[in-house]
Amino acid sequence: MSSSDIFISETIGTAVLILLGGGVCAAVTFKRSKAFNAGWVAIAFGWGFAVLTGAYIAAKSGANLNPAVTIGLAIKGGIEWSQVPVYFAGEMFGAMIGAVLVWIVYYGQFHAHLTDPEVLADHTSHEGLVDQATAPKAGPVLGIFSTGPEIRHAVQNLATEIVATVVLVLSILTLGLSDNGKGVGVIGTLLVALVVTGIGLSLGGPTGYAINPVRDLGPRIVHALLPLPNKGGSDWGYAWIPVVGPLIGGALAGGIYQVAFA
Amino acid sequence: MSSSDIFISETIGTAVLILLGGGVCAAVTFKRSKAFNAGWVAIAFGWGFAVLTGAYIAAKSGANLNPAVTIGLAIKGGIEWSQVPVYFAGEMFGAMIGAVLVWIVYYGQFHAHLTDPEVLADHTSHEGLVDQATAPKAGPVLGIFSTGPEIRHAVQNLATEIVATVVLVLSILTLGLSDNGKGVGVIGTLLVALVVTGIGLSLGGPTGYAINPVRDLGPRIVHALLPLPNKGGSDWGYAWIPVVGPLIGGALAGGIYQVAFA
Amino acid sequence: MSSSDIFISETIGTAVLILLGGGVCAAVTFKRSKAFNAGWVAIAFGWGFAVLTGAYIAAKSGANLNPAVTIGLAIKGGIEWSQVPVYFAGEMFGAMIGAVLVWIVYYGQFHAHLTDPEVLADHTSHEGLVDQATAPKAGPVLGIFSTGPEIRHAVQNLATEIVATVVLVLSILTLGLSDNGKGVGVIGTLLVALVVTGIGLSLGGPTGYAINPVRDLGPRIVHALLPLPNKGGSDWGYAWIPVVGPLIGGALAGGIYQVAFA
Amino acid sequence: MSSSDIFISETIGTAVLILLGGGVCAAVTFKRSKAFNAGWVAIAFGWGFAVLTGAYIAAKSGANLNPAVTIGLAIKGGIEWSQVPVYFAGEMFGAMIGAVLVWIVYYGQFHAHLTDPEVLADHTSHEGLVDQATAPKAGPVLGIFSTGPEIRHAVQNLATEIVATVVLVLSILTLGLSDNGKGVGVIGTLLVALVVTGIGLSLGGPTGYAINPVRDLGPRIVHALLPLPNKGGSDWGYAWIPVVGPLIGGALAGGIYQVAFA
Repeated sequence: MSSSDIFISETIGTAVLILLGGGVCAAVTFKRSKAFNAGWVAIAFGWGFAVLTGAYIAAKSGANLNPAVTIGLAIKGGIEWSQVPVYFAGEMFGAMIGAVLVWIVYYGQFHAHLTDPEVLADHTSHEGLVDQATAPKAGPVLGIFSTGPEIRHAVQNLATEIVATVVLVLSILTLGLSDNGKGVGVIGTLLVALVVTGIGLSLGGPTGYAINPVRDLGPRIVHALLPLPNKGGSDWGYAWIPVVGPLIGGALAGGIYQVAFA
Repeated sequence: MSSSDIFISETIGTAVLILLGGGVCAAVTFKRSKAFNAGWVAIAFGWGFAVLTGAYIAAKSGANLNPAVTIGLAIKGGIEWSQVPVYFAGEMFGAMIGAVLVWIVYYGQFHAHLTDPEVLADHTSHEGLVDQATAPKAGPVLGIFSTGPEIRHAVQNLATEIVATVVLVLSILTLGLSDNGKGVGVIGTLLVALVVTGIGLSLGGPTGYAINPVRDLGPRIVHALLPLPNKGGSDWGYAWIPVVGPLIGGALAGGIYQVAFA
Repeated sequence: MSSSDIFISETIGTAVLILLGGGVCAAVTFKRSKAFNAGWVAIAFGWGFAVLTGAYIAAKSGANLNPAVTIGLAIKGGIEWSQVPVYFAGEMFGAMIGAVLVWIVYYGQFHAHLTDPEVLADHTSHEGLVDQATAPKAGPVLGIFSTGPEIRHAVQNLATEIVATVVLVLSILTLGLSDNGKGVGVIGTLLVALVVTGIGLSLGGPTGYAINPVRDLGPRIVHALLPLPNKGGSDWGYAWIPVVGPLIGGALAGGIYQVAFA
Repeated sequence: MSSSDIFISETIGTAVLILLGGGVCAAVTFKRSKAFNAGWVAIAFGWGFAVLTGAYIAAKSGANLNPAVTIGLAIKGGIEWSQVPVYFAGEMFGAMIGAVLVWIVYYGQFHAHLTDPEVLADHTSHEGLVDQATAPKAGPVLGIFSTGPEIRHAVQNLATEIVATVVLVLSILTLGLSDNGKGVGVIGTLLVALVVTGIGLSLGGPTGYAINPVRDLGPRIVHALLPLPNKGGSDWGYAWIPVVGPLIGGALAGGIYQVAFA
C-alpha cells in the first residue's frame, strides 16, 4: 500500500477513535448532556466502541490507530519498519483532528461548563474524580482530552500504563494465532474493541488508561491551543508518562510474543 | 429485487427499529416501568440492539432503515438511484408504524404519566433532561418519539448530527473493505449495531443522536396525531435539524469514502 | 434426531436458561447478594446471556427453549409438527428444573429474605417495583420465578407480550436469510441473545417480557410447590397472559414471515 | 504441543485473566480509582472480558486457564490426561503472577485504602458487601484477590460453585457441536467470555463465582504473602470451597456431556 493511503486511512481512523473516545468523556462530564454522570461502564464501553468504529473505518491500512500497536506489529514483522513513521504521522494528525471534532460536537456544552461558577469553584478535574492536591495543574475539561492519575506517582503511573499496554498489544499480536492465520478481519476488530473495554474496566482506575501515546498527546496539544475560557493548565508535567509507558509496553509485548508464542 | 419486496422489508425493519428504540426511551421515562431510570447505558444499548434486530429482520433488502444510509450507499454504488425513493418510502412508513407500536406496548404507562400531576407540574421533557428555558414547546413524552437538544443552538445541533451521521455511514461503507468483499452479513450487522451504541454513548449527549431523518420525523408526526392527553407541543421548530443534518452527513460520508477509500 | 435426544437437549438447555434468567432476578432482589440493586441493565443482559448459554448447550436440538419459537419454526417448516409436543415437553420440564436450581443456588438468600420483617412489611414484589394496589396476590419472591405487570390491564399486557414475541420470533426466522442459508450457528446464537437483551431493555417495562410460555408457567408452578416461608400467592389470575400472548406472537411471526419474507 | 509450550501459554493467559479480573475488583473497591463504585455490571463484564483477553492470548494451548475446564476437556477427550498436570501448573503459576500484577498496577491505591481510618473502622470486606458477623476473618482487600460468601453456609456455597461451574464447562464442551466441528476459535472465545459474564450476573450473588480453583487459591496465597499493611486474614476456612466446588462441577459437566450430548 502507498504511504499516502496509509496516512489517510490512519488519520481518518484515529480521528474517529478520538472523536468517540473524547466524546464519551464529554458526554458524562457535562451537566447539559443527556449522558451526564452515566458512569464508568459508559466510559469503558464508549472507548471500546470508539476503537471498534475507528478500526472498522481504517481497515484498509490495518487500523493500528496507536503507535504502541505499530511498534508491536513491526517487531512481529507485520509492518515494515520503513512504514512506521507514516503510521505515526497519521495517528498523531488524526488524534488532533478528533479532539477538535469533540470540541465542535460539544461546543455549547464546553462554554456552559467553563463559565459555570460552580464548576470553576470546584478545582477537581478529570471527570471530577482527581484529588485536588495531587492534580494542581489540571484544568476542568482536561479529562475530556487527556488522561491523568488519581494518585500522582511516576513509577506506579508508568508501570500501570506499561502493563495495560502489554495486555492490549499482546492480544492483538496473538489474534493471528487464534484466527487460523486469516488475519484479524471483522471479528478480530470486535474482539480487540472488547479487550479495550476490559482494560478500561480493570486497569483504567489509576491513570485513565492512555495505552496509546497519540490518544493522550494529540488531544493535550489541542487542549493547549483551543480558545476555551478558563480552561486551566494542560498538565504538561504528566504528559510524558502516557507517551513513554505505552511505547515501552508495545515493545515489551512484541518481545514477549517473539519469545513465548512465535 | 422488486420494489414491493424492498418496500415491505424496509417497512418491517424500520418499524422494529423504532419500536425498540422508542421503547427503551419509554422504558426509562415512565415511573410504572420496570426499567424506570435505568440510565443512558440502557438507552445507548437499547438503540444499538434496536438496529441489530431491525437490520436482522430486513436483511432481504439490505436493511438500510435510514435515508442517510441509503444516500451513502447510492453514492458508493451499492444501491440504484431509481430505488432510493422506494427505500425512503418504506423507511418513513415503518418509522411511523413503529411509533404507534410503542404507544400500544406502553398504553397504560402513557396515560398514567400524562395524567400525573407531578409530571405535568414539571415542564422538563426529553427523558427529563432538557432545560425548560431552552425547550419551551416540548411536551412531556416527546422524548419517547423524537430527539431534542440539551442546548438549543441550530449551528451546533446541525454540526453534531452531521458529524455523528458521517461516523455511522462511513463505518457502514468501509465494512465491505474489512470483510474482504463478502458483504455485511450477520457479523457486520452486529458491528453496525455496536457502532450505533458507541455513537449514542459518545455523541448522543448534545442532541440525542437522531442520525436518521425518519427516526425523528416519522415518530414526531405520530406524536402530533396520537390522541394523548396533555401531550404538549411536538417542537416543530427543531424538526428540520434531525432531517437535514443526517442527510448531509450521509452524503458527506459517501463523498469521503469515494475520495479516501474507494 | 430421535425424540429422546430432542427432549434431553431441550430440557437441559431450558433448565440453564431459567437457572441464569431466574438467577439474575434473584441476584438483584436479595440484600445479601453481591449484585443487589444492580438494576435493569443487569437484568436485561443477564437474561440475554441466559439465552446465549442455554442455546449454546442445546445446539444439538436447535435450541428452541421456547414454545413460541417452536411454533414459529413449525409454521416456517424448520421443525416437523409431529416433533412439536416433544419440544414442548422438554421446554416445560427444563423450565421447572431451572427454577428449582435457582432456589438451590440462592437457598440461604431466599430464607433470609422471606423472614426479614422489613421485606414482609413491604408488600411490593417483582423486584420491588410493582404497585401494591395492582398486584395484591403477588408474593415477595414471585418476581424471581414469574413475570407480572406494572399496570394490570389484560388487553395491554397481552398486546405487549404479543408484540415482543413477534419481534423475537421474526428475528429468529429471518436469521436464515441474513446468514446465507448456513443455519443459525454460533454467531446466530449470539445475535439472538442480544435481540433478547434488546427486547428486555425496550419492551420489558410493562410486563417483564415473558415472551416464552414455559419461562413463566414452569417457574410459577415451582413457586407454588416449593416449601418457602411467607412466600405469598403465585398470582394465578395473571398466569394465562404470559402463556397465551407468546403463543399468539409466535404464530403471528410465523405468518408474517411466510407472507413478507418467504 | 510440547509441555513447555503449554505451560508458558497457560501461565501467560491465566496471568492476564487474573490481572484483569482482580483488576476490576480493585477498580470498583478503591476510592481513588476512576471506576470507584461502578457496580456489579462493571464487575461481571470486567471478568468476562478478562476471560476473553486471557483466552485470546493463550489460544496456542487451547486457553483452558482453569483446572475445571481442563478436567472437563480431559473427560471429553480433548486433552490427554498426561498433560493435565502441566495445564494445572501453568494455571496456578499464572494466577499467582496475575495477582501480583494487580498489586503493582494499583500499588498506591492499596496503600491509601489500607491506611484509611474510615476503611479500617469498617470491618466489612469483599467489595464492602459481606456481612461482618459472617466473615470475621476477611481482610479489607481480600475481595480483590479471592471470593467469599455473602451467607457463610458450606453446603449452599459448595452447591452454588458446583452449579455455576457445570454451566461454564458444559457450554465450553458443547461449543464444538454448535460450531460444526471447526473448533472454538475466535467467536467461541467471545461466546465463552459472555457466558462467564452471564454466570457472574446470574449466579455470582451468593459466593462471587470462583468457578475456577486457581482463580481463587492462587491470589489467596499471594494475599497471604504480600507485604500489605493492615491486610487482615486470608479467610483460609473458606478456601477449600472455591477449589473443591469447581473441580466437582467440571467433572460433573464432563459426565453430563458424555451421557447427554456425545
